[in-house]
Amino acid sequence: MDQGLRLAAAVSETRQWDRLMRLARIGAIAGDGVNRQALTALDREARRLMIAWAEEAGASVSVDDAANLWFRVEGRLADAAPVLTGSHMDSQPAGGRFDGMYGVMAGLEVLCALKDSGETLDRPLEVVAWTNEEGSRFAPGCMGSMAWAGVKPLAAFAETRDAEGVRFADALAEQLAAEADLPRRPLGGTVHAYIEAHIEQGPKLEAEGLDIGVVTGIQGSRWFTVTVMGDSTHAGTTPVSLRRDAMQGAVRAIMALNTLTADPTDVLRFTVGSLVVEPGSSNSVAGMVRFTIDLRHPDAAVLAEKGDAIAESIARVIAPCDAKVEERFSATPLRFDPELVASVQGAADALGLRWALMPSGAFHDAQLVASAVPSAMIFVPSHKGISHNPAEFTSATQLAAGTRSLAASLAQQAKITK
Amino acid sequence: MDQGLRLAAAVSETRQWDRLMRLARIGAIAGDGVNRQALTALDREARRLMIAWAEEAGASVSVDDAANLWFRVEGRLADAAPVLTGSHMDSQPAGGRFDGMYGVMAGLEVLCALKDSGETLDRPLEVVAWTNEEGSRFAPGCMGSMAWAGVKPLAAFAETRDAEGVRFADALAEQLAAEADLPRRPLGGTVHAYIEAHIEQGPKLEAEGLDIGVVTGIQGSRWFTVTVMGDSTHAGTTPVSLRRDAMQGAVRAIMALNTLTADPTDVLRFTVGSLVVEPGSSNSVAGMVRFTIDLRHPDAAVLAEKGDAIAESIARVIAPCDAKVEERFSATPLRFDPELVASVQGAADALGLRWALMPSGAFHDAQLVASAVPSAMIFVPSHKGISHNPAEFTSATQLAAGTRSLAASLAQQAKITK
Repeated sequence: MDQGLRLAAAVSETRQWDRLMRLARIGAIAGDGVNRQALTALDREARRLMIAWAEEAGASVSVDDAANLWFRVEGRLADAAPVLTGSHMDSQPAGGRFDGMYGVMAGLEVLCALKDSGETLDRPLEVVAWTNEEGSRFAPGCMGSMAWAGVKPLAAFAETRDAEGVRFADALAEQLAAEADLPRRPLGGTVHAYIEAHIEQGPKLEAEGLDIGVVTGIQGSRWFTVTVMGDSTHAGTTPVSLRRDAMQGAVRAIMALNTLTADPTDVLRFTVGSLVVEPGSSNSVAGMVRFTIDLRHPDAAVLAEKGDAIAESIARVIAPCDAKVEERFSATPLRFDPELVASVQGAADALGLRWALMPSGAFHDAQLVASAVPSAMIFVPSHKGISHNPAEFTSATQLAAGTRSLAASLAQQAKITK
Repeated sequence: MDQGLRLAAAVSETRQWDRLMRLARIGAIAGDGVNRQALTALDREARRLMIAWAEEAGASVSVDDAANLWFRVEGRLADAAPVLTGSHMDSQPAGGRFDGMYGVMAGLEVLCALKDSGETLDRPLEVVAWTNEEGSRFAPGCMGSMAWAGVKPLAAFAETRDAEGVRFADALAEQLAAEADLPRRPLGGTVHAYIEAHIEQGPKLEAEGLDIGVVTGIQGSRWFTVTVMGDSTHAGTTPVSLRRDAMQGAVRAIMALNTLTADPTDVLRFTVGSLVVEPGSSNSVAGMVRFTIDLRHPDAAVLAEKGDAIAESIARVIAPCDAKVEERFSATPLRFDPELVASVQGAADALGLRWALMPSGAFHDAQLVASAVPSAMIFVPSHKGISHNPAEFTSATQLAAGTRSLAASLAQQAKITK
């Protein structure tokens, strides 16, 4: 742990904060927010800045076929499987300054701390920025980590289109062309351990006055798209009894889903976050409504039962409209590697940080990486639990505590004791 | 009524249908639709065709300062106030073949029937094509009838611009210059009675197997915008009990409004046609939802009571969100002249047509003309109630029944009994 503590001591709170604030200017929106979506010119601008800082820290830079961006510092044993940290640099359309970006910046800060401290780890240390974690431009999210971990082939996403009709494959090709000066590395590979730092995005750590959350796993998710079909007619001339009003169909469907997902223990999470109406004219009855369902629970059995009941719950109330329910994505609940979790916990103890074990309510790249590599996560507090929002906030001190914890944990994992 | 019946008998179903189909080629769009907007070259091409047919029927042609187009056949008493029919020739951008155009064509067909039958009416008979009823190129609609009736001076619309930035005054001047060969008549004048034939644009007549609707008035409208404010938080990390979910707030508000506007008589029309969510991401709780309300009823008291209760109905269910209700537009209900309505009804009876009294769900030029002249309307069925859509359809037989009813009603009004 001595090397881990020296590395942690070299973490610079102000450098990390200043760089995060500099990054937040790329795609800045009102109220301290950030709108910097995957595979856009803003994304590329942010990556160029990170690349410059990584090179300054002595890291070699490369990119893989999924446009995941890699920074690597060699260890004492060049052939050893590296330890890996990272997260994502894309944001929600009205996102904050920390979600994802903090985890990549924390990794960069560890690289800088490594250089500043003069330490050398046994294993190589790699930092990755995964492509399109948010899934807000191209659904689903976590495409980069999913493709890297071999959960789905990259080609499976090729025809996905954004709201402007741009194909994912074309946006990816544009990104890779713009970064053609960077060495290309293969997609996938052997990694010794993956530890991702992230803001909690929930209220628990702040409420309990803790420094970090040692994350035990990630609740499962199922995402659906529901399309309600009706007839678009004139709002003034069509009696209500003769309408097939897709908006009213969608309202009935959401009410039925509220009943289906009602949970007195308040663990099940059901969200309709997007709803689009066609033609969307105030004096036309809606002919089509399409809305999303985000359903999450840590228990695979509950998630299966509730998710499987969605289509039938809607079918019971949707007449005289019709509805189509499509599952776009699902992830079973995940438990992180117990030994790695125990080691993160040990590092936090050694640093004198206040921590708690907790599951992650949100979905992260670590969920995908964990299918290929022993993985864990470190959470830092989120003010009032606010996230996916310009008001997202974690203090410089809280962020630095998380990064020190990450540094010590990575150093521990990088040690070859045999 | 004998003269009215003879005039009705001279109405030609095939001539009227063939001419409507010929007109529909001017501005034809996919799926039998028409895009022929006001004061365009297509509008002028359609008017030239109508002018040629009107002259063939022995009518004199003129145009007024608002580019309303007039056809006139003298009566036995040249100085008597004329009876007037007509509608508009402009269409929605993705409109059908019948909305507006049918009413002008029906008027022309009555002129032709008058010539073919050899009848002469006591009063002069005039047919008008009002300028810019749809309001889709230059808002608002009904400019021609509004200016003619003196509801608003023509100059009030001068600076209105279309999507390409063309001023209404310039488009009007271009139209008048292109029709400088036509005699100019004054804007306004004394008219004995106005009867407008139009497609229903609703499903009632077809559903009830009726030939025509004897329109009693135009229902009133109140348009509102409702903004529901919540907090946008992370769909995975925020317990449902701690959310201020604007989407759920909007669903509760719409359910409350469904209760408020429930009408066993199926006369009240409540429509939420547009709903926008922010940030609108599938894994973010909605921070803001804005939706529209279109409320219509023929009874001013009902419209006042229900419209005034909207804000309170929403307020009762909106917690923990907040809501703001804004009224954007209102139009009080209009009752057509009862004697004229009774006379239209009598003519339909004399012709053996199946009819029903009904209010108009949509706005029409007759709403403006009614402020200056005793007015009424005759509706013909709309297949499935579809309108403002290429699929708009009324059969040749149904259109002819409407025109026969119009011919008999106009003949009745043209009679000078004293």
